[in-house]
Amino acid sequence: MQLTAEGIIEWFKGLQDDICHSLEQLDGGKFHQDLWHRPEGGGGRTRIITGSLIEKGGVNFSAVEGNMPEKIANKLGLPANNFTATGVSIVLHAKSPHIPIIHMNVRYFQTDSGHWWFGGGIDVTPHLIQPEQAGWFHRYLKTVSDKFDGNYYPKFKQWADEYFYIKHRKETRGIGGIFFDRLDESKGSKAAVFEYVKAVGKSFIPIYTYLVDANKTRTYNDQDLQWQSLRRGRYVEFNLVWDKGTKFGLDTNGRTESILMSLPPIANWIYDFVPDQDSAYAKTQAMLKKDIDWINY
Amino acid sequence: MQLTAEGIIEWFKGLQDDICHSLEQLDGGKFHQDLWHRPEGGGGRTRIITGSLIEKGGVNFSAVEGNMPEKIANKLGLPANNFTATGVSIVLHAKSPHIPIIHMNVRYFQTDSGHWWFGGGIDVTPHLIQPEQAGWFHRYLKTVSDKFDGNYYPKFKQWADEYFYIKHRKETRGIGGIFFDRLDESKGSKAAVFEYVKAVGKSFIPIYTYLVDANKTRTYNDQDLQWQSLRRGRYVEFNLVWDKGTKFGLDTNGRTESILMSLPPIANWIYDFVPDQDSAYAKTQAMLKKDIDWINY
Repeated sequence: MQLTAEGIIEWFKGLQDDICHSLEQLDGGKFHQDLWHRPEGGGGRTRIITGSLIEKGGVNFSAVEGNMPEKIANKLGLPANNFTATGVSIVLHAKSPHIPIIHMNVRYFQTDSGHWWFGGGIDVTPHLIQPEQAGWFHRYLKTVSDKFDGNYYPKFKQWADEYFYIKHRKETRGIGGIFFDRLDESKGSKAAVFEYVKAVGKSFIPIYTYLVDANKTRTYNDQDLQWQSLRRGRYVEFNLVWDKGTKFGLDTNGRTESILMSLPPIANWIYDFVPDQDSAYAKTQAMLKKDIDWINY
Repeated sequence: MQLTAEGIIEWFKGLQDDICHSLEQLDGGKFHQDLWHRPEGGGGRTRIITGSLIEKGGVNFSAVEGNMPEKIANKLGLPANNFTATGVSIVLHAKSPHIPIIHMNVRYFQTDSGHWWFGGGIDVTPHLIQPEQAGWFHRYLKTVSDKFDGNYYPKFKQWADEYFYIKHRKETRGIGGIFFDRLDESKGSKAAVFEYVKAVGKSFIPIYTYLVDANKTRTYNDQDLQWQSLRRGRYVEFNLVWDKGTKFGLDTNGRTESILMSLPPIANWIYDFVPDQDSAYAKTQAMLKKDIDWINY
């Protein structure tokens, strides 16, 4: 059977449904949904949760289509043309500073002239890094990826280290994960590449469930919460200054509230904050580096 | 007497001293100073206050010099050359939601090839707009500007409306003020243009003193503080997404902590927050528009 844009869109919608359902079970709270339409074509389902474990979370689905602005065509190196872009995008900020911020995105893009590709990734931003949990997370991504191509994990792990880098702070956003873009026919048939993207999408719930269960009963104090707010400030800096997806959305008149659902509930900036030497905060700070081999850490 | 870069630098340093001194008297708190050196030449004095009225404030002086990166030369439309750039930059976040966020910048730029210009401005971001205070502020700026050129205030007021605009929110940052860049020999001699920039710099303390005195005894509740945090979130969005000065600093490997001193202590993002109809918050929201004639409001 031919894999169509409609088929991919339906699968992404189902993924959003499954993930929201599982998160409601994990959290006990309920998602609020906003349906929106893009004047130029397409729209989305923005789902937001303010729960008991999750302080602020968004699970977005969108499928937009229409004429590609010349500016974007140039950027992509494509002739201006009709396009379809669809995907699922997630950011969850938990209440507990022990539960990491998690981000996942899977997306598909095609033009009427026959170009197509997938992109996506998962990355994790602990406020307090637990190296053994970071190892578990990276092993999980490697296992998922190795089923498709032994080069995927090492390549996409490095790509995440480069992508989720806060240049002006000379630190990574967190412990990385995987990031990939423009997976096209050079990687196999559309159906074959989609199978990998599906596997990445389906890994979200097992990964987040593990991270929640491993950390949800751990206690924390006001100092931990202050540190969490400072790390969330860095998350804001990355998303607003460096994240290409956010920039693209804000530049192309996307739905601002859906794009900026990634921002944390409370963030904090203290001038030139330096954590106490040997504190857990300082240890985390020292691990915000590219090229850490978390699997063998 | 010839007006040299050194003379302008000395005046800016004195302005920083005077403003810090006056703010310490107004607040009761003390500034902390960090001296920093730029490896490529020059440096600065970053002064930060965590006071009783001012929750987080920065008054920065810097004077940098050296070889202009080609990228910047291209952007400025100048031949790559040695340059000197100096200025004073201020952002103050008060504790009280009734006291507006204030920003001022005065700056001078020259190249060895003989190009020079001044830039600067003052703008005010009330969490809760008081139209009569906005009128007072704009009248003050008009009076200062009219002494030099009757076209300055209307032109620079409009420039501020355009510059301090949060495009993805379709709202202004606050009530604007004045903004100007590249004031050069087309406006008069270097000494004459400098007199205007000095007048702008010297207007900061009377303006902020007025805004503090008019609002400091007004009471506020938790809802007002939440609104303040949300408006500070918008301030973060403007500075990190749209502000050319911030971008320039982060792109050119500036001192991150000095550049980002402008960010608020606590900011908040709530998905799709809409203030209650007829509330003071909704009234402020409705006034975040370009081209309001505050003087005759």
